[in-house]
Amino acid sequence: MITLIQYNDPGYTTRDGLSPAEASKLVKPDHINWFDVEITNKILVEDTAQFFGIHHLMAEDIQNLEQLPKFEVFDKYLFFTLKMLVFNPDANKITQEHLSIVMGEDLIITFQEGLPGDVFDELRNRIALAKGRIRKYGADYLFYNIIDSVVDNYMIIMERLRDKIEKLEAEIIKDPSFHVVEEIMEIKKEINTLRKYTLPLRDALNKMRVEGSHFIQKTSVNYFQDVADHIHYLISSFETSREMLKDIMDLHLSNLSNDMNKVMKTLTVVAAIFIPLTFIAGVYGMNFKYMPELDSPYGYPMLWTFMIVSSVVMVVYMKHKKWL
Amino acid sequence: MITLIQYNDPGYTTRDGLSPAEASKLVKPDHINWFDVEITNKILVEDTAQFFGIHHLMAEDIQNLEQLPKFEVFDKYLFFTLKMLVFNPDANKITQEHLSIVMGEDLIITFQEGLPGDVFDELRNRIALAKGRIRKYGADYLFYNIIDSVVDNYMIIMERLRDKIEKLEAEIIKDPSFHVVEEIMEIKKEINTLRKYTLPLRDALNKMRVEGSHFIQKTSVNYFQDVADHIHYLISSFETSREMLKDIMDLHLSNLSNDMNKVMKTLTVVAAIFIPLTFIAGVYGMNFKYMPELDSPYGYPMLWTFMIVSSVVMVVYMKHKKWL
Amino acid sequence: MITLIQYNDPGYTTRDGLSPAEASKLVKPDHINWFDVEITNKILVEDTAQFFGIHHLMAEDIQNLEQLPKFEVFDKYLFFTLKMLVFNPDANKITQEHLSIVMGEDLIITFQEGLPGDVFDELRNRIALAKGRIRKYGADYLFYNIIDSVVDNYMIIMERLRDKIEKLEAEIIKDPSFHVVEEIMEIKKEINTLRKYTLPLRDALNKMRVEGSHFIQKTSVNYFQDVADHIHYLISSFETSREMLKDIMDLHLSNLSNDMNKVMKTLTVVAAIFIPLTFIAGVYGMNFKYMPELDSPYGYPMLWTFMIVSSVVMVVYMKHKKWL
Amino acid sequence: MITLIQYNDPGYTTRDGLSPAEASKLVKPDHINWFDVEITNKILVEDTAQFFGIHHLMAEDIQNLEQLPKFEVFDKYLFFTLKMLVFNPDANKITQEHLSIVMGEDLIITFQEGLPGDVFDELRNRIALAKGRIRKYGADYLFYNIIDSVVDNYMIIMERLRDKIEKLEAEIIKDPSFHVVEEIMEIKKEINTLRKYTLPLRDALNKMRVEGSHFIQKTSVNYFQDVADHIHYLISSFETSREMLKDIMDLHLSNLSNDMNKVMKTLTVVAAIFIPLTFIAGVYGMNFKYMPELDSPYGYPMLWTFMIVSSVVMVVYMKHKKWL
Amino acid sequence: MITLIQYNDPGYTTRDGLSPAEASKLVKPDHINWFDVEITNKILVEDTAQFFGIHHLMAEDIQNLEQLPKFEVFDKYLFFTLKMLVFNPDANKITQEHLSIVMGEDLIITFQEGLPGDVFDELRNRIALAKGRIRKYGADYLFYNIIDSVVDNYMIIMERLRDKIEKLEAEIIKDPSFHVVEEIMEIKKEINTLRKYTLPLRDALNKMRVEGSHFIQKTSVNYFQDVADHIHYLISSFETSREMLKDIMDLHLSNLSNDMNKVMKTLTVVAAIFIPLTFIAGVYGMNFKYMPELDSPYGYPMLWTFMIVSSVVMVVYMKHKKWL
Repeated sequence: MITLIQYNDPGYTTRDGLSPAEASKLVKPDHINWFDVEITNKILVEDTAQFFGIHHLMAEDIQNLEQLPKFEVFDKYLFFTLKMLVFNPDANKITQEHLSIVMGEDLIITFQEGLPGDVFDELRNRIALAKGRIRKYGADYLFYNIIDSVVDNYMIIMERLRDKIEKLEAEIIKDPSFHVVEEIMEIKKEINTLRKYTLPLRDALNKMRVEGSHFIQKTSVNYFQDVADHIHYLISSFETSREMLKDIMDLHLSNLSNDMNKVMKTLTVVAAIFIPLTFIAGVYGMNFKYMPELDSPYGYPMLWTFMIVSSVVMVVYMKHKKWL
Repeated sequence: MITLIQYNDPGYTTRDGLSPAEASKLVKPDHINWFDVEITNKILVEDTAQFFGIHHLMAEDIQNLEQLPKFEVFDKYLFFTLKMLVFNPDANKITQEHLSIVMGEDLIITFQEGLPGDVFDELRNRIALAKGRIRKYGADYLFYNIIDSVVDNYMIIMERLRDKIEKLEAEIIKDPSFHVVEEIMEIKKEINTLRKYTLPLRDALNKMRVEGSHFIQKTSVNYFQDVADHIHYLISSFETSREMLKDIMDLHLSNLSNDMNKVMKTLTVVAAIFIPLTFIAGVYGMNFKYMPELDSPYGYPMLWTFMIVSSVVMVVYMKHKKWL
Repeated sequence: MITLIQYNDPGYTTRDGLSPAEASKLVKPDHINWFDVEITNKILVEDTAQFFGIHHLMAEDIQNLEQLPKFEVFDKYLFFTLKMLVFNPDANKITQEHLSIVMGEDLIITFQEGLPGDVFDELRNRIALAKGRIRKYGADYLFYNIIDSVVDNYMIIMERLRDKIEKLEAEIIKDPSFHVVEEIMEIKKEINTLRKYTLPLRDALNKMRVEGSHFIQKTSVNYFQDVADHIHYLISSFETSREMLKDIMDLHLSNLSNDMNKVMKTLTVVAAIFIPLTFIAGVYGMNFKYMPELDSPYGYPMLWTFMIVSSVVMVVYMKHKKWL
Repeated sequence: MITLIQYNDPGYTTRDGLSPAEASKLVKPDHINWFDVEITNKILVEDTAQFFGIHHLMAEDIQNLEQLPKFEVFDKYLFFTLKMLVFNPDANKITQEHLSIVMGEDLIITFQEGLPGDVFDELRNRIALAKGRIRKYGADYLFYNIIDSVVDNYMIIMERLRDKIEKLEAEIIKDPSFHVVEEIMEIKKEINTLRKYTLPLRDALNKMRVEGSHFIQKTSVNYFQDVADHIHYLISSFETSREMLKDIMDLHLSNLSNDMNKVMKTLTVVAAIFIPLTFIAGVYGMNFKYMPELDSPYGYPMLWTFMIVSSVVMVVYMKHKKWL
Repeated sequence: MITLIQYNDPGYTTRDGLSPAEASKLVKPDHINWFDVEITNKILVEDTAQFFGIHHLMAEDIQNLEQLPKFEVFDKYLFFTLKMLVFNPDANKITQEHLSIVMGEDLIITFQEGLPGDVFDELRNRIALAKGRIRKYGADYLFYNIIDSVVDNYMIIMERLRDKIEKLEAEIIKDPSFHVVEEIMEIKKEINTLRKYTLPLRDALNKMRVEGSHFIQKTSVNYFQDVADHIHYLISSFETSREMLKDIMDLHLSNLSNDMNKVMKTLTVVAAIFIPLTFIAGVYGMNFKYMPELDSPYGYPMLWTFMIVSSVVMVVYMKHKKWL
């Protein structure tokens, strides 16, 4: 259940399905030894911790799937834990996996929840094919590449969220009655998830720069700066997205008010024209014995004239008030 | 009224109902001496303070149930005060107890309001049964375990509040007329209570790291970091919860507006169709002598035709406007 | 117009109505000399400043009743200025007095606006009766007690404001139509007043800890920390109160909307039932010669049947829509 | 166009209408030389800069009327630029002038847009009449006095704005229909203007304390602290004012809603009482041949009885609902 | 495709259409060598990077058009990347170009997306004509001028946005029904774009001051401070603009409410006057046999009198309530 990728500049081996005991014996100096462990099995993690001399506090954090990203220095190891977030287009949702990285000299152990071969496939390929600098550089460069693969997926998810926001905005501008509140809440939730794991990741990276510097070679500093830049960009995107969502919400509320205003104006126009006319018709429907107007042959046409004229005046007045 | 738990790696004793004078004589070197005092009785606290040489400022803070969490260093002692918050499922509410911890060399004195045997039962068990590392480590590890027990209960309460928020959200999405404002206020209050005690707790822990370092052994530093991480997680949860509640509130207000819009549209539809028709009926109910339409045999059916056609036109127009 | 309280552990004297010249000659070494000056009289302040060698900038701040709390170090003196805020239950309002404290070695001069014997009565009593540690400690302990008396009154006022807020909340939950906006504004104003003087007070205390340390004995440091804790608590209370008021305001606005919705629903129900019926009655009130229904003996009862049935259908539909 | 005020403790001269060349020759040691230049003329500024050895960057900032307040240290000079804001009661608006101060040893050059004799008149008077300490102290004290005169005018403007806000609040409480939005916007704009120049001024003063300390004598430090205090007070006033304006806006919006509720309640009351009654009247206006009620002699009075009773019931119900 | 501008105090040459290989050979000591490269072609960038010894991380950032502004120090080079934002009045929109600057000793290489001759035309002119100090100062002064040209365009864009905001404000005050929400959103988006590139630019400049100081001569420090001041001004403008937009939005929402109130008042006035009158007319249209009023000759005129009087009373009451 442990996979080992072992490489240096000239060579490359890979082994599958190792037990912790076997794995710990395979560590070769002058090679980069990358052990990938699945953390579904509690005993496996504890055995691995024991065989590799990993502090029990690290072992607990590895198994605690609720653990937020953090970085800690132990005697022999750097410990880094973060979340892999991958957008799964089939299920149309984000899946998250807890990922812990233990780095020693020439040694990297990754602990992940799911199946191997997800975010790291491209990285494994590069190692196998000796693409780029990966085979020439040390364990810290591999470490950087692992974190970078994770953060790249954050960027992809964020891009997708921004697309959603822009689509939402276009939609509400096209159709003001479009009901956006639930959609806004859903997007906000996804942004919150992303942010929940990104903010402590930034702190972890900062802490690493300060406290873990003796594990990181000077040539790799600029690479880690690059990841930090990406995270910076993500965090500023959260702010902007939040504001865009707030603007959409404001537009929606303003649309609701506008809509209401239009409805009320229609009602008022209808009522203001016809209620007085109905009253007048009611007057001449009364059964008083002595109503001189009723007997005049001009009564009926004059009344119509009066009613039409007053309606026209009313309509003109309302046009002037922009209620029509 | 003072309970003593005295242990080292091989042995373990416990004594009940001690007076301060008795208690102070029982302190054994090479053991961890944990005295648990109930602070309901003022004289008891002051006697304890006197027999153990506790500064009167500490004694005041121990008795001041309004005291916020804080940490202070005195000559012989570290002083830490915080709140135990426990969710009581029977009463469906959170009970709070004031807890003060005085730590000297090999000596811990806890002062609490309520009955012994609440949050610390599991810890006492571990000591009695020598589970884990508790019997092997020093007073600082016991100190850590006491604080950790308290913070774990904070996490449980927060989890419960988040469940409440999610249930509220589900409910309002299912039934938009659900009235959420009082429930939001209630949850906010509980979050505020939790936050009120968590924020100064963070500061106290930070201060302890800086000023109390000579009381904490190097091997325990990572443990205290763990508690700090939990508190960090709590604080970020407060933020997220607040935002979720705000979103629910926004949804509620938007629902209210929507609801109003629907009601107004119904009113407008009814009024716009029937008020003009009523006017027309009123016209032909007038008693003018000379109204030629009344005498025609086609007058009545033609009027019905006109009224039905105009209603249909009106309805079609309103469908187009999405008011129906 | 200057009052002197002069004490050491064994003895205690008090003198009234001194002039600055007299006062300055009465300073006794090995005693704590507390001069209390009323600042209503400009010349008195300037004379006092001259006889005691107080810098003219201090004298200006003492007389400037708009001066915010601040702390400054001069050659021979510490200077501290703050506001005494006392809730006056008779007038049901907060009175404020400008208070300046000049501290030298064995010497404290307080300058206050109002009458002596307000906030400090209890302190004077303690000195007279030699209660607690006051007669045993130095001028810095008296200094602490003066500031502590002031801050304690801030706490009392804040407690009163929180009570008001809670009463307001209870009231609006009991009676949703209760109009809270003016009350909220009034409470906010009082909180703002309190905050206006508390925030710079915190800064002043911080500055004192850094710059005035040579005037404060090591044993008094914990006491000043205590005042700082109270101020911390006050400031966090401001935040919480503000949020509670915001929640009450939100509840109020949501109540207004709800109320409106109910009114509109009633109107719509009445209109939707009776306007169509009125139209039908209008139809059969028309005077067409040929209206076959009018001649049928069943016309009238059938119409009533139709109207009642359609009303019932309408009511059922509206119950279903929760408008009734 | 350059005015020179030259003084020391015993003496005082003033000269008008100097050219830069003349001015630069008049600098006397053992005197404070204050040159006041009007910056309307570009060449004048550049000549002055040349004759006094002022860096071209300073010259640019002097002429750039958009320049925000800032402080900079050059080899021979301190450079300080800020805005004079003066409330002009005649025009009922705030006029702003760009003011730059160049300070060297015994030398101060002020560059201002407008006419001499505005904010500094009182200062010139004090110099002429040897009032206070101005003639005894050095150039840094003059420098302080110049800045202080400017900041005092800020305080006056802020006071005026607070008065406006309080008047607005009183007005809206007296007359809830008072339309405050435009007034709020106007006040906000003025506050923003003031804040725009105050915030960088604070930064400039801070920078001066750190970088310009060798130009400021130790005895003057407390004076500059005084200006800093004023600015602090201003900035906290901005916050408070903003909140007060927000509260007024909330009150206004709540008033609008209240107003609407009242209007709707009136409409609903009228409609709910009279629409059903009109329907009943319509029923008995129908022309059916067989309507037994019409023939009864008690029909008419009984109907009136019924209508009055049902109206009274309606009114009582609405009173109970607080709609009347 | 590479353009070279080579100059020192006495001389100036320019060459066009160079290949990276040619360009790298043309670097002359004692001259400032400014190479301007278009980054549309990937190979060109990589060749340039190779010939000039530029680190591959720089080359990646040069080509990554999504890269936010940043500053980094490499062994031989300073690296600065930012966005050129130019308002294009023809298209009425802002065009953005990615700009990277590599600075070595006597050497500046700029990489830009678009065509040469946009923001830098004026700068090239100054070099050609030896205007100002440009030909006398070093590469760091050219570097400053490049950044300054970019930031100046930011200022122009911001000015344009503020004009737009002020126009919007004037418009909504003139015509309260003006629909501003979409316009506000559009302006906000442009501000967000500007801010997105300005905030990291500030950080980059700060970082340069700290880490790149050995590349910047002491005489140039004040120039870079100047750019920092402009950026400071921009950032404070963002805040102010955001607030102004919020105020406009508030005004708009308040206008919507006001508008609604007016409409509802009109409706209520019409309904409250005519619905009761219609009821009365309906009463006397009833066909009861025994209605004494109908037979009286004064019935009809008395009814009119009653109706007119009650209408007048109603109107007066409504005037009093300010609904008319």
